[in-house]
Amino acid sequence: MIGVIAACLTTLAFLPQVIKTVQTKDTSGISLGMYAMQVTGIFLWLCHGIRIGDLPLIMANAVSFVLSGIILVYKIRYK
Amino acid sequence: MIGVIAACLTTLAFLPQVIKTVQTKDTSGISLGMYAMQVTGIFLWLCHGIRIGDLPLIMANAVSFVLSGIILVYKIRYK
Repeated sequence: MIGVIAACLTTLAFLPQVIKTVQTKDTSGISLGMYAMQVTGIFLWLCHGIRIGDLPLIMANAVSFVLSGIILVYKIRYK
Repeated sequence: MIGVIAACLTTLAFLPQVIKTVQTKDTSGISLGMYAMQVTGIFLWLCHGIRIGDLPLIMANAVSFVLSGIILVYKIRYK
């Protein structure tokens, strides 16, 4: 139960950042290195989830991958 | 193995952001909501890890908690 709440929080945490970044296009304070590592790491978590067939791991990381991917694209686009 | 690499990447991803934020104090593009949710979520992952006695989960989230906590403190301090 704590794990489920934790998964929801760390997944949905990217949402306010996506909204802020898309609205303001202000990416000066955002680290490219962080999002490059996050997107790669989340993609590997997703592969790991598919490999072991764990649905919560797959779902949480699929959502995180899209959200952190949007931030990464904005960071590269609006340097 | 994929899981270990994934854990290292998503944990260490906060490091370039911490360095950037501490050096520049530029937090305008960073979402307060994101880091409030991240720090809370990571703390719950840590509790979950302690509860089930999983050392990799405890270590990864202990490091992430400190790193994302520093970003949150800077965001609140240099609004």
